[in-house]
Amino acid sequence: MSTTVDLDRLLPGRVVTDPGIAAGYAVDASPQAVALTGDEFTVVRARSREDVVTTLRYAAERRVSVVPQGGRTSTTGSGEALPGAIVLSTATMTSVHIDPVERIAVVGPGVINADLKAVAAKHGLAYPPDPASASMCSIGGNIATNAGGLCCVKYGVTADYVRGLEVVLPGGEVMRTGRRTAKGVAGYDLTGLLVGSEGTLGVVTEAVLRLVPLGDPPLTVLAVFPDLAATVAGIEALRTQPHTPSLVELMDGPSIAAVQAYGDYGFPAHAGGVLLVQSDRPGHAGSDVQRYAELLSAAGATEVAVAEDRVEADLLLEGRRALNPGLKARGDHIIEDVCVPVGRLGELVAAVHEIGARHAVGTTCAGHAGDGNLHPCFFYDRHDPVSQQAAERAFDDLVRVAWDLGGTLTGEHGVGSLKVDWLAEELGTAEVNRQRAVKALFDPLGIMNPGRGIA
Amino acid sequence: MSTTVDLDRLLPGRVVTDPGIAAGYAVDASPQAVALTGDEFTVVRARSREDVVTTLRYAAERRVSVVPQGGRTSTTGSGEALPGAIVLSTATMTSVHIDPVERIAVVGPGVINADLKAVAAKHGLAYPPDPASASMCSIGGNIATNAGGLCCVKYGVTADYVRGLEVVLPGGEVMRTGRRTAKGVAGYDLTGLLVGSEGTLGVVTEAVLRLVPLGDPPLTVLAVFPDLAATVAGIEALRTQPHTPSLVELMDGPSIAAVQAYGDYGFPAHAGGVLLVQSDRPGHAGSDVQRYAELLSAAGATEVAVAEDRVEADLLLEGRRALNPGLKARGDHIIEDVCVPVGRLGELVAAVHEIGARHAVGTTCAGHAGDGNLHPCFFYDRHDPVSQQAAERAFDDLVRVAWDLGGTLTGEHGVGSLKVDWLAEELGTAEVNRQRAVKALFDPLGIMNPGRGIA
Repeated sequence: MSTTVDLDRLLPGRVVTDPGIAAGYAVDASPQAVALTGDEFTVVRARSREDVVTTLRYAAERRVSVVPQGGRTSTTGSGEALPGAIVLSTATMTSVHIDPVERIAVVGPGVINADLKAVAAKHGLAYPPDPASASMCSIGGNIATNAGGLCCVKYGVTADYVRGLEVVLPGGEVMRTGRRTAKGVAGYDLTGLLVGSEGTLGVVTEAVLRLVPLGDPPLTVLAVFPDLAATVAGIEALRTQPHTPSLVELMDGPSIAAVQAYGDYGFPAHAGGVLLVQSDRPGHAGSDVQRYAELLSAAGATEVAVAEDRVEADLLLEGRRALNPGLKARGDHIIEDVCVPVGRLGELVAAVHEIGARHAVGTTCAGHAGDGNLHPCFFYDRHDPVSQQAAERAFDDLVRVAWDLGGTLTGEHGVGSLKVDWLAEELGTAEVNRQRAVKALFDPLGIMNPGRGIA
Repeated sequence: MSTTVDLDRLLPGRVVTDPGIAAGYAVDASPQAVALTGDEFTVVRARSREDVVTTLRYAAERRVSVVPQGGRTSTTGSGEALPGAIVLSTATMTSVHIDPVERIAVVGPGVINADLKAVAAKHGLAYPPDPASASMCSIGGNIATNAGGLCCVKYGVTADYVRGLEVVLPGGEVMRTGRRTAKGVAGYDLTGLLVGSEGTLGVVTEAVLRLVPLGDPPLTVLAVFPDLAATVAGIEALRTQPHTPSLVELMDGPSIAAVQAYGDYGFPAHAGGVLLVQSDRPGHAGSDVQRYAELLSAAGATEVAVAEDRVEADLLLEGRRALNPGLKARGDHIIEDVCVPVGRLGELVAAVHEIGARHAVGTTCAGHAGDGNLHPCFFYDRHDPVSQQAAERAFDDLVRVAWDLGGTLTGEHGVGSLKVDWLAEELGTAEVNRQRAVKALFDPLGIMNPGRGIA
């Protein structure tokens, strides 16, 4: 491609000229991703803000689309290559500077979430946002999707930790938003606007992130239920106490089977549903998990175990984190990310299985039960169009159920290309038009990750 | 005014037709406010969203400016009447609905902050944002300024608690942003853009606010220091421990004198500086305040007292909250709201007194020491132009010091009219132009609170 030739001249050493290697940048972790070949797009591996500026300036001059890419763990297609586009990877921009007095981290977008956690921990600090893909996903991608994960029930989402950004806009202008101070309200909050914008407004080249004191290691309860109704009763029982557990994760039987088929993480066979529940309250975690255990037993758990040590607890959490690769190993599927008011979670869970049965598609149901944010999957065989259509109809039906329950089509994965056609139905035409106008302010040529997030 | 006549016909019973009563809506709590007479503007007391729609539709048709008004506690002039404008008060829109399962409050903009706290407490829940004016300021105003206050060091600011908004835009269109669910990332985050927009984009008619479990009653330490340098040493000593106190407030000697002249709140005479420090950690507050007391003594406090009971602690906090009226009683002044990185707080405090001495103006120095956000005042006599100019120069000098220390001109009060000429210098021309374009998307006629926040 001429784009590859041009950029290789402008950015020597940054452009992937071998189509075999470029092919490795074709897809993200979206189950429905279909890979372009490595000669259908151009890969720039930016090492610096200046590399990003050069790339975005070139892209605007030549009207070439740009797909920003981080750890490629998106499940909605927001990081997949587009034909003729520049895939702009910031994966190697991994600088981390911790300021323990201000309790901030100033990081490059390529830093892996778990690596930032590890560096912060050396200073007695924590970066809470915790997607299941923490060991693979980048902070830049976390910011692009406003990623959540396993901590949100107590600690919130990525947006709650971003104080300021350096962003390169289409055309190459460098914009700085937000602040390094604890508070600051000068001007409109454009930091929040950029967080969750799915690469459609610009490319993050640096982020100032708020850190918090490192908590005690959490204690973990595993509760096994005979069916999902009882599991939901367990979730509701946890809600009767005043404080918030630091983690409340749900997995149904088919989810557990997918995880255990991927590796033995210590989950029980033949469970209708399990809950993983944690407390990290200093001085209270021990009594908390005992109380959780009692509440969950009373709610109908047939087995309740407090993880005996850190190793056992970590293994269970690792199992939860292995769910997405486990599902991928099980087969082709579409993954949901609906979020409903927590009081309606039981209805959502019931709908997943009813819808799966109605369309005769395999389902799994798992997710962040404390937030009302579930990631059900509907399985199909890509060589069987009938099965694929059935899975798509099941997916559509579940989105409508989420809306009927007062929820949203995406709690944390984002809209991507997967749900872009749905957005106007959720937000309304007037609102989508307003959002298009916001996008046009930043990206008048419409070349930033086109067709993702908003179209 | 014809506007008054027109709107009285459109909104019978909502328009203040008596200029004497209208005059009560002329100013906010800005020390430099100069009152218009009640016949120079029109006051609409909206009772509903529809009243706001009617008012904003009329305003757009007639190109009349609109000043949204809540509890009129702004210190930056953002709520002062403008000549010929409609002052649109939402003070009587005070509905509150608490959903204890979702842990949200759905409120009208006129609800007083302290009233919301009291209602939430009945459900075992808390609304943390806590401006010193909590007993007078409205949630709509808190949202307009992204208000902070005494809790921020541990609990953050208003933006951290706003899940969604209903906003009437110029021309009368009703817009809904955000969500009622715990998480949700469909579309750009326009909720965050509206929070802190100082009434320049639209009028909030309903807010969905996140609540948290009600904590234990905090325990309070009062530490008295011989001078401000020792006081700063005390603040730094607190920072050596891992967890975050729930409140760290600084007052210098002249601030204490102003408070005690306003009422006896139990503060000591002849202190160089005092710190109020709280812990609300369940099960740890007692040991926390003992450790604070030891750290503060070691840092040079001449007197350290743990409040013996709730009454004594409440009286001290009430005294801190009485600071602004106490300063007003002391005399004419300009109030700062600079925020610097917490590690530079000592330099900022030193600069306040150096600048005051250099310009020979009276100063007070107080504020949210845990955040690096101070509210120093420079006093003058409005009948003495020389003294006023000196105070203005001192104010300007302190803004520059804050910038030199890596800070911002406003931590929480907002830009208002007071600092609008400074904004471009802090953000840069390109950024201010981008923000003007954002404003124009919402308010193409430029009639929403013109000259405040951004100009």
